[in-house]
Amino acid sequence: MFIKNTWYVACTLDELAALGDKPLGRTICNEKMAIFKGPDGQVAAVEDFCPHRGAPLSLGQSCKNGVRCGYHGLEMGVDGKTVHMPGQRVRGFPAVKAFAVVERYGFVWVWPGDQAQVDVAQMPVFKFFDDPAWAYGGGLYHVQADYRLMIDNLMDLTHETYVHATSIGQPEIDETPCETKIDGDKVITQRFMDGIQAPPFWQMAMSANGLDPQAPVDRWQICRFTPPSHIMIDVGVALAGHGGFDAPADKKAYSVVVDFITPETETSHWYHWGMARNFKPGDAALTDSIRQGQGGIFSEDMEMLQLQQANMLRYPERKLLMLNIDAGGVQSRRVIDRYLAKEQTPNAQAHSADPQTEAKATA
Amino acid sequence: MFIKNTWYVACTLDELAALGDKPLGRTICNEKMAIFKGPDGQVAAVEDFCPHRGAPLSLGQSCKNGVRCGYHGLEMGVDGKTVHMPGQRVRGFPAVKAFAVVERYGFVWVWPGDQAQVDVAQMPVFKFFDDPAWAYGGGLYHVQADYRLMIDNLMDLTHETYVHATSIGQPEIDETPCETKIDGDKVITQRFMDGIQAPPFWQMAMSANGLDPQAPVDRWQICRFTPPSHIMIDVGVALAGHGGFDAPADKKAYSVVVDFITPETETSHWYHWGMARNFKPGDAALTDSIRQGQGGIFSEDMEMLQLQQANMLRYPERKLLMLNIDAGGVQSRRVIDRYLAKEQTPNAQAHSADPQTEAKATA
Amino acid sequence: MFIKNTWYVACTLDELAALGDKPLGRTICNEKMAIFKGPDGQVAAVEDFCPHRGAPLSLGQSCKNGVRCGYHGLEMGVDGKTVHMPGQRVRGFPAVKAFAVVERYGFVWVWPGDQAQVDVAQMPVFKFFDDPAWAYGGGLYHVQADYRLMIDNLMDLTHETYVHATSIGQPEIDETPCETKIDGDKVITQRFMDGIQAPPFWQMAMSANGLDPQAPVDRWQICRFTPPSHIMIDVGVALAGHGGFDAPADKKAYSVVVDFITPETETSHWYHWGMARNFKPGDAALTDSIRQGQGGIFSEDMEMLQLQQANMLRYPERKLLMLNIDAGGVQSRRVIDRYLAKEQTPNAQAHSADPQTEAKATA
Repeated sequence: MFIKNTWYVACTLDELAALGDKPLGRTICNEKMAIFKGPDGQVAAVEDFCPHRGAPLSLGQSCKNGVRCGYHGLEMGVDGKTVHMPGQRVRGFPAVKAFAVVERYGFVWVWPGDQAQVDVAQMPVFKFFDDPAWAYGGGLYHVQADYRLMIDNLMDLTHETYVHATSIGQPEIDETPCETKIDGDKVITQRFMDGIQAPPFWQMAMSANGLDPQAPVDRWQICRFTPPSHIMIDVGVALAGHGGFDAPADKKAYSVVVDFITPETETSHWYHWGMARNFKPGDAALTDSIRQGQGGIFSEDMEMLQLQQANMLRYPERKLLMLNIDAGGVQSRRVIDRYLAKEQTPNAQAHSADPQTEAKATA
Repeated sequence: MFIKNTWYVACTLDELAALGDKPLGRTICNEKMAIFKGPDGQVAAVEDFCPHRGAPLSLGQSCKNGVRCGYHGLEMGVDGKTVHMPGQRVRGFPAVKAFAVVERYGFVWVWPGDQAQVDVAQMPVFKFFDDPAWAYGGGLYHVQADYRLMIDNLMDLTHETYVHATSIGQPEIDETPCETKIDGDKVITQRFMDGIQAPPFWQMAMSANGLDPQAPVDRWQICRFTPPSHIMIDVGVALAGHGGFDAPADKKAYSVVVDFITPETETSHWYHWGMARNFKPGDAALTDSIRQGQGGIFSEDMEMLQLQQANMLRYPERKLLMLNIDAGGVQSRRVIDRYLAKEQTPNAQAHSADPQTEAKATA
Repeated sequence: MFIKNTWYVACTLDELAALGDKPLGRTICNEKMAIFKGPDGQVAAVEDFCPHRGAPLSLGQSCKNGVRCGYHGLEMGVDGKTVHMPGQRVRGFPAVKAFAVVERYGFVWVWPGDQAQVDVAQMPVFKFFDDPAWAYGGGLYHVQADYRLMIDNLMDLTHETYVHATSIGQPEIDETPCETKIDGDKVITQRFMDGIQAPPFWQMAMSANGLDPQAPVDRWQICRFTPPSHIMIDVGVALAGHGGFDAPADKKAYSVVVDFITPETETSHWYHWGMARNFKPGDAALTDSIRQGQGGIFSEDMEMLQLQQANMLRYPERKLLMLNIDAGGVQSRRVIDRYLAKEQTPNAQAHSADPQTEAKATA
C-alpha cells in the first residue's frame, strides 16, 4: 500500500533524453507507465498498455499525437485516449490511465493516484536546485527492498559507522546521541559531533574547499523527512569552534544529501540519490568525483537492505526493535501511515475513477 | 489447453543429427518428451521419465533396444515399455507414454495426444518441400508467449509497418485494407498492394531474381492458417501490371513464409520459421542470406510478443479489441476453440488412456 | 522434514578461514545460520538474523563479544544473546537461536535442532582423519535436489557404469549383484568383482601405489550409511587372488570415499565429498590429482540428480521402482524415517523451545 495522491520522482530528464523518441517504461507504486516526450515537447505518462492488443506502449515511439504503439500503430494521446489508428475508427476505444506529470529540478515527477485530486501546488520546493551558488550531481539505483527500509536507513545515520567505515563512518557517530523532532508532517533527526577528526569523504571535501583536512571540525547531520518519501540531509563539517552548521561559508564544507525514494512494488523501489553542495559549484570534475564517491557509499547500503528484506520475508512474524536511534524511521512511517489512512477514507476515494475509463489531462 | 490429437513439428532432423546418439529433450503441449533415433534408424519419442527412478531419459543415449537411461542403464523401447535392465526382470515395470512420430519435410512431427487416435493421413501436405524448383531455409525460436499470440501476429501483417519498418514494412500495408475469408477449417487473410515501391527485403529478392529492384511492383500477402497452428504465407512482388500473384515466374519474386508454431506450455512455444522460394533454388548463399534476413526480422517480433504476454498476465481481466485487422487471428482462434471443444467431448475421450499404462507403437 | 537433533557438517574450517573475520552465512535443515570464529577462537553459530532490524548477521564481522552486526553495530554473543550495542541497554533484547558447534576432522559440525538435547558423544568417529598413514582431500558441491536423492545415488553404485563410464564405471559393476545388509541403524551395500581389469581411475591409483595398472584385480565397493546422512564407501582394488579387501597393503590401492550430505532445504543440499587414502599420504600432488579426478566424477552426478529432482516435482504422484539395486537407498531412507518419527513424538518435543527466546551455550 502506497501514498498515491502525491508527487514522486519518476525519472530524470536525462534518462528520457538518452532514449531519443523511445518512451521509458517504469513501474511506480505498482502503476506501469510509459513516460515520453509529448507532441508539445512536454513529458507525459500513460499506462503502459495498448488498448488494442495489450502491447506495452513503451515499445513504441513519440509521435505528433502523443505515443504510437510499436505493434500496429495505434496513436495514444497524452490523455490516455486513442487519437488515431490506421484504417480504424477509434472513438469507442477504451482509454488508458494518464498520469499528471511535472518537469522540475531536472526530474520528471508523476502523480500515480487519483487524477481528479492532482494538485501542482503540492510539489515540493528545493531552492538549491535553482540557485547558481549550488551544484548538483546524483544517480539512480534499483533496490529490491521495501522503500520504507531505505527511509529507515537514511533517517538513522548510526549505520555509517558500520556500513561505511572507510568513507563517512567514524566511531563518534554512534557515540553521539541523536535527537528526533516532529514538525507537523516533517520528521527531523539530527546529530552534532564537535571537535572531531573529519572522516575520509569530508577530508576530501575540505581539501576541495581550501580547508586543512587534518584540522579538528564540528560535524553535523540533519535528516529531514517529508512525505511521501523525500529525505534531504544537511551534512557538513566546519573548522571547530566557528559555529558548526552556522559557521561562515569559508570555514565549512556543506552539502545536502538528496534522496528521492520512489516505490516500485511492495518489495522494490527506485532510489534517486544525489548531493547538492554550496561550494565550487562550477567545478564539474568535483561534481563527478563526489558523485562517484557517493555512488560507492550508497551501493554499500544496497546489499544490506536487500538481504534485510529477504530476512523479513522469511520471518514475517517477527517484530523488529524500535530503539532511540530508530526514532527517525519510526516517526516517518507514522506520517506515512497517517497519509495512507487519509487516502483510504470514503471521501478521498469518492473522486477516484476506474483506470480503464479514466483519462484526465496531464498537468 | 491445447489441441493434442494432431501433428506438431517437434524438432528438425538436423537438430537431432547434431546430438549424435543423445536424445533431444523437449516439451510439447505440456508433454515432456525424449526424442531419439530408434534402433531401426527411425525417430521415436517417449515420455522423458525413466520408470525406475524418474531420471530424464533425454540424459541417456540411443541403444539397440531404443533409448538407455543414463542413470542405471534401463533400456526403454520405442513403445515406452522397458526392454532390458542389467540384473533385473523388467516385465512388470510400468510403461511410459510413447508418442507417434512421422519424419517428413526435414522435420520430426509428433502426435502429443491420445495415441489410439493417431492418424498419419492427417499429416499436412506441403508440396514445395519435395519440389526441386523450390529451396527452403529456416530456423527455430523459443518464445515466452502463448502460441496464439504468434498466430495473431502472423495472421495480421499490418504490424510489419511498425515492427519491421526497416525491412519488409512500408506505409502502404496499413493503408491497404485486408480481407479475411474462412474456408472450412482454414482461415485466409490477404492484402494486395498494387503499383508500389518494394521494401528493402523484396528489393534484395528482386535483385537476386534478376529484376530491377527500383521498378514499381504489385505486392501480395496471403496468410493461410490451418489447425492446429500452421501458417503458410504467400508473399511476393511482381513487376507492376503483370498479374501480381499470377504473374509469370520471370516477372516476380515469390516465396512462402513457413510458420510451424508448437505450444510448449500455456505461456511459451517453439517457433519453427522459414522461407520456401521458387527462384534460384540451387543458390545456397542466397538461402543463407534470406535465412539471416528473416531471422533478424522475426526476432523483432519476439520482444513484442513476450512483453505483450507479460502485460496480459498482469491485467488478466482486460478484454482486448478485435478490429478488422485482427480478423485473421480471431477466426483462427475460433477454429482452435472448435477443435478443443471436440477433443473435450466424452466420445473423443473414450479412447484416451492413462499415460502410465498406455504404450502404443509409434507410427 | 529433517532429522534435526544430530550433527551435520556445516562447512570446512578452510572455508571459514578464507573469510577472515567475516562470518559464513549458510542454511542447514532450513535453519539460516551465521557461522563465525568466536572471541575464544572457537567457531560458533547463531541464527542469521539481527534482533534489532532483521539484518543478516553474516554481513557483519567477528568481534570480542562474538559477532557484530554490520548495520548498526549490535554485538551478539555466541549464545544468541545481545551483549552490547552503542548507546543502548540491551538486556531486554530478544535472543536468537544459537547452535551447538563442534570442530573436528577439519570440519565445523552443527546441531540444528533442539539445543537442550545436544550430545557431543553422538559425534561420529572417523579414525582415518587422525591417522598419519592416511591422507584426505575433498570439495563441496551445492546440489539443487533433495538430499535423499544423493543418498540413493551413493548407496547404489550401479550408476557408475552409466554416469561415470570414462573413469570408474565398467560393465562388471552392473553384471555383479550387490548385497545389502542392515546392522542396527547402519546400512551396508557391497559388491565384489574378482579378476577384472581396473577402470581408468583405479589404474591411476595402482600406478601411484607402485602396482602394474594392467594386472587383473579384485575390486570392492562397500557403502556404509549412518544417520543422519553420512556415507563412507570402502573402495579399492587388489592384485587378483591376494584376498581382495583383506589383501596386504602393498598388493592393493585402497581408499574411503567420504560423503557428508547436509540438507539445506527440502529440494537442495550441501555435498561435502572427499577421499581418504591409506597410501602415499605425504604426496600432496597425488592428493590434488585425486581431488580433481573425484571432483570431475561427482560433478557428473549433479546434472542427473537435479533433473531427476525436477522430474519428481513435475510428477509428484508417480511412484518410483524399488529394485534390488535400490535396496541401499531404500533401507537408508527407512532409518531416516525411523529417526524422524522419534523426533516427532511428544516426549522428544518436550525439550524444544521457541527459537526467539531460546539461547543455549554452544558445545
